[in-house]
Amino acid sequence: MVALSLSHRLRRTPFSDGVEASGVKAYTVYNHMLLPTVFRSPAEDYHHLKTAVQIWDVACERQVELRGPDAARLMQMLTPRDLRGMNVGQCYYVPIVDETGGMLNDPVAVKLAEDRWWISIADSDLLYWVKAIAHGWRLDVLVDEPDVSPLAVQGPKADDLMARVFGDSVRDVRFFRYGVFDFQGRNLVIARSGYSKQGGYEIYVEGGDIGMPLWNALFEAGKDLDVHAGCPNLIERIEGGLLSYGNDMNSNNTPHECGLGKFCNTHTAIGCIGRDALLRVAKEGPVQKICAVEIEGPNVPGCDRWWPIMAGGKRVGRISSAAWSPDHNTNVAIGMVRMTHWEPGTEVEVEAPDQTRRAVVREAFWA
Amino acid sequence: MVALSLSHRLRRTPFSDGVEASGVKAYTVYNHMLLPTVFRSPAEDYHHLKTAVQIWDVACERQVELRGPDAARLMQMLTPRDLRGMNVGQCYYVPIVDETGGMLNDPVAVKLAEDRWWISIADSDLLYWVKAIAHGWRLDVLVDEPDVSPLAVQGPKADDLMARVFGDSVRDVRFFRYGVFDFQGRNLVIARSGYSKQGGYEIYVEGGDIGMPLWNALFEAGKDLDVHAGCPNLIERIEGGLLSYGNDMNSNNTPHECGLGKFCNTHTAIGCIGRDALLRVAKEGPVQKICAVEIEGPNVPGCDRWWPIMAGGKRVGRISSAAWSPDHNTNVAIGMVRMTHWEPGTEVEVEAPDQTRRAVVREAFWA
Repeated sequence: MVALSLSHRLRRTPFSDGVEASGVKAYTVYNHMLLPTVFRSPAEDYHHLKTAVQIWDVACERQVELRGPDAARLMQMLTPRDLRGMNVGQCYYVPIVDETGGMLNDPVAVKLAEDRWWISIADSDLLYWVKAIAHGWRLDVLVDEPDVSPLAVQGPKADDLMARVFGDSVRDVRFFRYGVFDFQGRNLVIARSGYSKQGGYEIYVEGGDIGMPLWNALFEAGKDLDVHAGCPNLIERIEGGLLSYGNDMNSNNTPHECGLGKFCNTHTAIGCIGRDALLRVAKEGPVQKICAVEIEGPNVPGCDRWWPIMAGGKRVGRISSAAWSPDHNTNVAIGMVRMTHWEPGTEVEVEAPDQTRRAVVREAFWA
Repeated sequence: MVALSLSHRLRRTPFSDGVEASGVKAYTVYNHMLLPTVFRSPAEDYHHLKTAVQIWDVACERQVELRGPDAARLMQMLTPRDLRGMNVGQCYYVPIVDETGGMLNDPVAVKLAEDRWWISIADSDLLYWVKAIAHGWRLDVLVDEPDVSPLAVQGPKADDLMARVFGDSVRDVRFFRYGVFDFQGRNLVIARSGYSKQGGYEIYVEGGDIGMPLWNALFEAGKDLDVHAGCPNLIERIEGGLLSYGNDMNSNNTPHECGLGKFCNTHTAIGCIGRDALLRVAKEGPVQKICAVEIEGPNVPGCDRWWPIMAGGKRVGRISSAAWSPDHNTNVAIGMVRMTHWEPGTEVEVEAPDQTRRAVVREAFWA
């Protein structure tokens, strides 16, 4: 483990005091902000996430807010997903692409009103793209970053914990929908969503001043539920096939390569930037795609660079995320594999830094 | 010091193998890339930088390349600095502002040809802004991130070291000019510039494959010059008044607040986005500005959040960067101070996390 030098440029969050008091052991940097990565150990955090409930400081999922008469038009310009059927109260996972169809981010769009949206972003300054598109197209819309910091509550006991703080009606929020709930006289958007497959919520904490009061209220209410500070867990998210922008894909990749073709309604998403390029991709299909890959042998080291996937002496892809899974008793991984080798069951080799290992392309992710 | 979890998303550079072999002790993350912060200790690195020569992996200064008939027009749209007098062979420090005059980045523009520019960026995804402006304004220009990674050679012995590798003519490169020099059959742009006041060069290493060969050649040639791996040094850059985007200013600040009014030719930079807002600022002047601040007392702790500057019980600014200076035997700092208290000699108080300290606004930076 290497050391991280702190500075104001790596922004603290409204929950950082709580994260530190909970004994955070390591961070990464995400959208210029501190994102915890380990509290007890990756394996302990993993087991706990699957059995109890965790509070995650994911303030780094910054919001881009669109407000004004052209907000909906701008939102549709940003993504190939058709938004015409989306209602207020819904959240959509939306690939955002540039004029060539390359992915700029894979955020969640939150429709607050016809003329007001939040885009809850992955790790890139999407605000710069959106502001400049609005400017260049002279749209009648305000684009900025509001004082909104998501706090996730994840794990099988998330419903019970949330009901204690926000009332039983929070249980009725459906997947990728949100409701508005009161906390200390403030209205907070709460969605059933989150970067795990264990179920739970994301609270869009509007106003940094109530960050620690809410953090403390959740811990106080969850004492007997074994609530613990947590964070997105590498092992669990690979098992679940949850992609990480910047790790598993970047602006060189189309949504179709990332298995996100199902979120591209390219024929009907009229006005979407990059539509021409994506119509071509949709017609021909991608030549490589993201696959689940099982890597044999003992625990893999940390995947801090792409590992080549080889077959018959040729490079046929790369592993971008990998970890030992205690529950599946194997190394789980996410890789980009060329079409010649993406059939489930195909045997390949992975050039991990410690040794070349046998690996198999899988039909699906583990969870 | 806290731990940093590595992943592919925090990109390695073409020089990372050399950085690790040189015993890097800590990193920060800058433009999604690893940037070393300490080799021996901040104080040792500081003394060495001022007396010898260092090789810095600043690959994180990514380039945005503009190419095509509208490249120069686009470049002028991005900055309030008048570029009409800029020649091929020159580098300009250019504030980049949004439509409200807020700073998006403070990069160095490199004019390679009338229709080809590099923008060597500070810590924000400026590529997203530039690509979207080009798209929205339907400009005839290609915008992308080339495979170019700057390597800086900084310190009083930089000229001697560089002459040994690139020949004596590299000594003739003037400040903020560049020349093109051969290394192993490749043409490299080399500018006299860098993020220190100790003199030196930045080599725009085009092609990651020659990163380590060049790194090794510089170390080999500089053995008797006490060459050492280094990095931007917090103490030295504060003494020199070199600003850090994201630390000392962000998109809430105008260039004028940052002391960069001299780089704003708002009346003549026709076409610049944000010009209307900046004409207003230029007329009225800013109400706060960045100042050198001397903080009394023993060594300050690390400045990982803004420290309030107080006077008479009121908040009159904030410290954004601070460090103990061994050479000046005091704490040197950069702060944003309101006009009521920016007169040199004004006594204020700084609420550092360990204690409230007496401080003085200074006439100028230390170097």
